[in-house]
Amino acid sequence: MRLSRYFLPVLKEEPKEAQIVSHRLMLRSGMIRQQAAGIYSWLPLGNKILKRIEQIVHEEQQRAGHIPLLMPTLQPADLWRRSGRYDAYGEEMLRITDRNKREMLYGPTNEEMITDIFRSYVSSYKSLPLTLYHIQWKFRDEMRPRFGVMRGREFLMKDGYNFDLTKEDALHAYNRHLVSYLRTYERMGLQAIPMRADGGPIGGDYTHEFLVLAETGESEVFYDSEITDLKFGNRQIDYDSVEQCEGVLQEFTSRYARTDETHDEAIFAEVPEDRRRSARGIEVGQIFYFGTKYSEAMGANVVNDKGERVPAHMGSHGIGVSRLLGAIIEANHDDKGIIWPEGVTPFHVGIVNLKQGDASTDSASEALYTELKAAGLDPLYDDRDERAGAKFATIDLIGLPWRITVGPRGLAENKVELTNRRSGESVEMSPAEAVQRLKAVYQPVFDAAYKG
Amino acid sequence: MRLSRYFLPVLKEEPKEAQIVSHRLMLRSGMIRQQAAGIYSWLPLGNKILKRIEQIVHEEQQRAGHIPLLMPTLQPADLWRRSGRYDAYGEEMLRITDRNKREMLYGPTNEEMITDIFRSYVSSYKSLPLTLYHIQWKFRDEMRPRFGVMRGREFLMKDGYNFDLTKEDALHAYNRHLVSYLRTYERMGLQAIPMRADGGPIGGDYTHEFLVLAETGESEVFYDSEITDLKFGNRQIDYDSVEQCEGVLQEFTSRYARTDETHDEAIFAEVPEDRRRSARGIEVGQIFYFGTKYSEAMGANVVNDKGERVPAHMGSHGIGVSRLLGAIIEANHDDKGIIWPEGVTPFHVGIVNLKQGDASTDSASEALYTELKAAGLDPLYDDRDERAGAKFATIDLIGLPWRITVGPRGLAENKVELTNRRSGESVEMSPAEAVQRLKAVYQPVFDAAYKG
Repeated sequence: MRLSRYFLPVLKEEPKEAQIVSHRLMLRSGMIRQQAAGIYSWLPLGNKILKRIEQIVHEEQQRAGHIPLLMPTLQPADLWRRSGRYDAYGEEMLRITDRNKREMLYGPTNEEMITDIFRSYVSSYKSLPLTLYHIQWKFRDEMRPRFGVMRGREFLMKDGYNFDLTKEDALHAYNRHLVSYLRTYERMGLQAIPMRADGGPIGGDYTHEFLVLAETGESEVFYDSEITDLKFGNRQIDYDSVEQCEGVLQEFTSRYARTDETHDEAIFAEVPEDRRRSARGIEVGQIFYFGTKYSEAMGANVVNDKGERVPAHMGSHGIGVSRLLGAIIEANHDDKGIIWPEGVTPFHVGIVNLKQGDASTDSASEALYTELKAAGLDPLYDDRDERAGAKFATIDLIGLPWRITVGPRGLAENKVELTNRRSGESVEMSPAEAVQRLKAVYQPVFDAAYKG
Repeated sequence: MRLSRYFLPVLKEEPKEAQIVSHRLMLRSGMIRQQAAGIYSWLPLGNKILKRIEQIVHEEQQRAGHIPLLMPTLQPADLWRRSGRYDAYGEEMLRITDRNKREMLYGPTNEEMITDIFRSYVSSYKSLPLTLYHIQWKFRDEMRPRFGVMRGREFLMKDGYNFDLTKEDALHAYNRHLVSYLRTYERMGLQAIPMRADGGPIGGDYTHEFLVLAETGESEVFYDSEITDLKFGNRQIDYDSVEQCEGVLQEFTSRYARTDETHDEAIFAEVPEDRRRSARGIEVGQIFYFGTKYSEAMGANVVNDKGERVPAHMGSHGIGVSRLLGAIIEANHDDKGIIWPEGVTPFHVGIVNLKQGDASTDSASEALYTELKAAGLDPLYDDRDERAGAKFATIDLIGLPWRITVGPRGLAENKVELTNRRSGESVEMSPAEAVQRLKAVYQPVFDAAYKG
């Protein structure tokens, strides 16, 4: 993309309404615009990152064998009356009456609807196991929406639901989700720690929250410091293998790690003192096994191999897609702006032409832009007629992890400068070398993709 | 995808509630499920096709230089009061009151919001031309939703908005949209004819609707039969070229083609009698130039090169993404089911194993499945333990354009059967040849993609 043809309305002033750094940086870098309390437009840059994150979530769900579908944003109230949650949900549920006086709601989650879909079509254990998911906009009418997309009212979420014949099968689905979530977050450059959590209004005997450590996190968390040394990495996991998934779960959940809701001082005291940590965390996902709670309430039964009708064992599993942008920024920024991990960066590299209008820097920048695209990379070429300082500040603010600077002095020796945003380190090299270097940097990102 | 692991709830019975063939076939093939009047879940098959269509729309928008963003589904009522449309819009607008008694609405379109975004950030003619678009769920509270996704209440739409300094520039944007729409529809296997239309509530001095001819269309249309001979094909168009875009517009709109709203018997009578046609059509898109209507009402001004503040010239441009599935089916089906054009088919080919459980057909089918995927194709392998007739019926019903049949008799001579859904023609060949043949069939589809 050429910046002169893009729409990137960066702000010069500090936005006053933003209390936390991710909100401030998303506004300043022209990623979002508030349209009403807790309701945002995703401007082109924000939308592009949102799509990258969505894509990673889709790929990792499908790698684990989960099937995408798409449920609507609005739901009939009757569906929620059957589970008993219509009255229980309280004021956070946005209730709507249509022109024919039918009661509707803007879905905050989809347990009822997916159970209704399941029971309408599935009647035999032969159709199990089955995990269906979607990524769709949800609404929670928060009393005080705040912190930008971290606690918005209209938000994008991946929610998935497993249907299994037995508790054992459903626990395998639980473990499989835990594994796939670990890989999902790591691809985004995040360390999200599974912590024992509380079921809350969804219910659930087994539940883990995934938390990203950050000073601005809404939850207090307590953990054994050994847990932060764990890496999922690029393991080849057979998601059908009960043993392998169980093994990963054991490895990542056997150490102490709890939110304040489930924290137990007595157990925590057993962790060696030098490994006991308390910190703040941002919740970016949660997985639940809740047994037959919804299937019994809504009649989602299957016939087993003995010919008996039994309720399906279920769980639900969520990833806060839009809030992840905030969480990633909270964990990756400095005083100049955002520092995107390579897995989610909106553009792979920014090209800064120091002397726009100069025949040699223009043609070298154009050539680089073309070659980077030919190498499968997605560059942002700052071709505006602006001072070098302003161009650097923009690329730094919006967080591109790499920058290539093209100037007349370097070009005289066929050199450009490749700069790493995180380390600040700059190295001179030929344009061709810069393309090769970046191709190598991003190869693991491309290799991590799941193509089906 | 292996069918045994997919979720494809095809119906054996004819759904009684469906009045038109596309609605009936979408229900029967397990693509959609109605959750409330005019509100649908997109089951995995339907969702997959919806995503393919969305992807084509995105690619063609970006090829034309249009910038994606994403506006929320809910909007504040105040925004619509400023344009005067809040009261004018009538009961089709779904009005919502949140817990803090603020008036909101579920957006039926986005002229107000995009104008608000524009005026908040853009103040100079140097930022123009600019076209922003999004693909987002909309809501129109239809009194009598019907015909499945063709006239639903919650529907997916691409809506784009151009901002230009002058009328001439805005007319170029109009022409550019017409060109990109022609390419968009053709990639989906549709002939959508641009017809002179009426501005309606959006307003507009220039507007064309795109109509697909089909018996079940809601509009009566009148046209010169020469128009159906026009093909956009794989032309290389420079979207910045005023002359090229204008040339395409002339070619595709100079012959008589109007909906009943603008039909003029006197002008139609000038078309030679043997070329005069009347038929029914389904509207799948519309483009508008409406000048400064919204920019004046909402203060979206820019400073021109003489230092004067002038209102931006605007247009809006819509493609009915979810309704396109219905339109494609109306134009592509037979008594066995759907026949997807290759550009949008959910799976490129179905593999039917005639003797599931037989070592040789199983291993040949598995090998084919693997080789098709390695060739970049997306096959559906019917690996269920079902009769051949049931497998053929499913592949035909869901509309896959190609089928490979693997049976023990053919395999004895290293042969499988490749069948074309539309012609019904079957040819025997080796599995390797079948893979090569399909690769060649889909090469134009892959080549048509825009990679940025």
